[in-house]
Amino acid sequence: MITLSSDFGSPYPAAMRGVILDRCDARLVDVSHEFPRHDVRATAFWLRETLPYFPPAVHCVVVDPGVGTDRDAIVVRVGRHALVAPDNGVVLPVARALAGLDPGESLADATHQTVEAYVVDDADAASSTFHGRDVFAPAAARVHEVGVAAVGGMEGVEATDRDALVDCTLPAATVEGDRAEGEVLVVDDFGNAVTNVPGGFLADAEAATVNGERVPVGETFAAVPEGEQLVTVGSHGNVECDVNRGRGDEAFGLGPADEVTLERC
Amino acid sequence: MITLSSDFGSPYPAAMRGVILDRCDARLVDVSHEFPRHDVRATAFWLRETLPYFPPAVHCVVVDPGVGTDRDAIVVRVGRHALVAPDNGVVLPVARALAGLDPGESLADATHQTVEAYVVDDADAASSTFHGRDVFAPAAARVHEVGVAAVGGMEGVEATDRDALVDCTLPAATVEGDRAEGEVLVVDDFGNAVTNVPGGFLADAEAATVNGERVPVGETFAAVPEGEQLVTVGSHGNVECDVNRGRGDEAFGLGPADEVTLERC
Amino acid sequence: MITLSSDFGSPYPAAMRGVILDRCDARLVDVSHEFPRHDVRATAFWLRETLPYFPPAVHCVVVDPGVGTDRDAIVVRVGRHALVAPDNGVVLPVARALAGLDPGESLADATHQTVEAYVVDDADAASSTFHGRDVFAPAAARVHEVGVAAVGGMEGVEATDRDALVDCTLPAATVEGDRAEGEVLVVDDFGNAVTNVPGGFLADAEAATVNGERVPVGETFAAVPEGEQLVTVGSHGNVECDVNRGRGDEAFGLGPADEVTLERC
Repeated sequence: MITLSSDFGSPYPAAMRGVILDRCDARLVDVSHEFPRHDVRATAFWLRETLPYFPPAVHCVVVDPGVGTDRDAIVVRVGRHALVAPDNGVVLPVARALAGLDPGESLADATHQTVEAYVVDDADAASSTFHGRDVFAPAAARVHEVGVAAVGGMEGVEATDRDALVDCTLPAATVEGDRAEGEVLVVDDFGNAVTNVPGGFLADAEAATVNGERVPVGETFAAVPEGEQLVTVGSHGNVECDVNRGRGDEAFGLGPADEVTLERC
Repeated sequence: MITLSSDFGSPYPAAMRGVILDRCDARLVDVSHEFPRHDVRATAFWLRETLPYFPPAVHCVVVDPGVGTDRDAIVVRVGRHALVAPDNGVVLPVARALAGLDPGESLADATHQTVEAYVVDDADAASSTFHGRDVFAPAAARVHEVGVAAVGGMEGVEATDRDALVDCTLPAATVEGDRAEGEVLVVDDFGNAVTNVPGGFLADAEAATVNGERVPVGETFAAVPEGEQLVTVGSHGNVECDVNRGRGDEAFGLGPADEVTLERC
Repeated sequence: MITLSSDFGSPYPAAMRGVILDRCDARLVDVSHEFPRHDVRATAFWLRETLPYFPPAVHCVVVDPGVGTDRDAIVVRVGRHALVAPDNGVVLPVARALAGLDPGESLADATHQTVEAYVVDDADAASSTFHGRDVFAPAAARVHEVGVAAVGGMEGVEATDRDALVDCTLPAATVEGDRAEGEVLVVDDFGNAVTNVPGGFLADAEAATVNGERVPVGETFAAVPEGEQLVTVGSHGNVECDVNRGRGDEAFGLGPADEVTLERC
């Protein structure tokens, strides 16, 4: 199985599908091609929250604002998963998650899973602007063909130091007593503003302030009437700023990377 | 085969794909993840017009504004199809269609097809806001694994009264002679305003008024010059208000649930 | 394998998937359902740049502003590929590409590949407005079932003259010395304005003017600071007007079919 993730929209992913299917018989599964454009950190968050639900697979990820520069193309093997991506940090958080590591830990500290890192030779890429088609899709197909466990013996890759990869750290919130200072990691398609404040912060609270605005804490969106604001613990375990059947980002005036101060009340 | 329908946009459907593929080897087919958000009735219409074209399958449907409340998760078996969905009516119109029933009839009246209803145990759901991932996808995978005909013997479901399910009735138009009073059911991606007036109303008419505005009746969009309004009988058999190569909703000033009075002339 | 291409958005492609899967066991691969609406020429460009990356397949293409008129439904066989589409020119450029022909050449001149053309009998179509579901999807399934090489013996098709098909010619740019006059073929989802000027025009140039505005020539988007304009040679080999991490169409004021004059400097 090869999964595909990008910020390409349409139709560029089709060329990647064609390249892969021309080389191997893998099952193809789209994760998303609507990841926030050029946004490595937001994509890294979504991948961390999504790919661990998949069975072992080759995950081909192309959110790559540095395409064509000297940034490397890499393969990170974590157990029976392989992540094929640009070396810009986009797969580091999910690599840690798959390896059973905490956010601050190094891939070199993995003990539960085999973690290996490789650089892909991309000297022969046909274009400087579409490595999804010319580098990452062919590499994913090759990893699928040789098998994740044998990636080290594959032609066109060279082992590299697991600690030498470009990292991407999702910012941590500061929680002190009844006050949390964090930020918005992503806004989802429903308009829910997903913060980095751990959901446990809301435990047993009936209401909270979001940047000074008091709203109910709800277990579900429908805990408040249609069109009204609330905070919930989202499916990723973080505090979300929502509107029942509406857009939380607009109601709270919050966008990606905006600062959020929460107070329990 | 498992089909997926939701109003999730992207990337939430990917977690459902991962959950299913981690549990079974079903072929996955997307119906749409762009169904009108929180709109049970519009989605019910599209499902009724779409799913009957599929071969027997498990259809996993998540348009679920009441997620996390005490609404049930259900499985409706109709012959060799199974519909896995929240108990909010979203699959009732397509269940009737698959069972060969008319819009007003009860599922309990089905004689051509076996129709059974089950409640899914969702007490252990990991989240209160993403039952697509935590309840419906796992249930769809389990139905696929045991087989639609054996769903009654599956763990985690309990038979329920077919007449106890929450219903969703698409409104019927009133046709009297040359006048029809109805409403817009959905606006499609082309901007065609699909009404609930049966296409037969336009038989042999050369023109009609839509809320007083006279336009030609066309068999095809191209029956009028580019940019001009017309009414046609759409692919679902209902009267549509269209513009050739343009948006009928804008030209006619019509949106979902708006009233429409048609007169043949 | 059957690939699907349309300008349908969602959910109409689902009915096509259902119709095909009800008739055969083909692997289904979406190319795009977001092709520029009613835009035969832009779709023809994207298909030419995308389908040749696929292994042999049946390609079902429905960008069809003339649906329901007397335009034919056709199958064009090129070697082991089959293109099922309306006879409006949308598949002619990719047919030439698959046949190894130059843009100006006739399909009848193909010598490297077997090229055959057929008209599909669509007299029994259930609707006048959704031939994707009622004509093209069933035809694609039938071609898949009989096999591309045997399409001539298939029921419901009749051989036609390869030169009688409606053509679609992508306009060619005029290059004289350091000056090129062309136009924008498409704007991609990133906002890159893709022109018809061959990339070779920029060889060794460090800067160029676009309709009088001087910008750097870059090998990659990141050759200029974030937010700044440049021209590059895109992945299709043509000159693109871009902004690093931004939208070239907006910065240059360019849309599809707009004229572009480039000068090397």
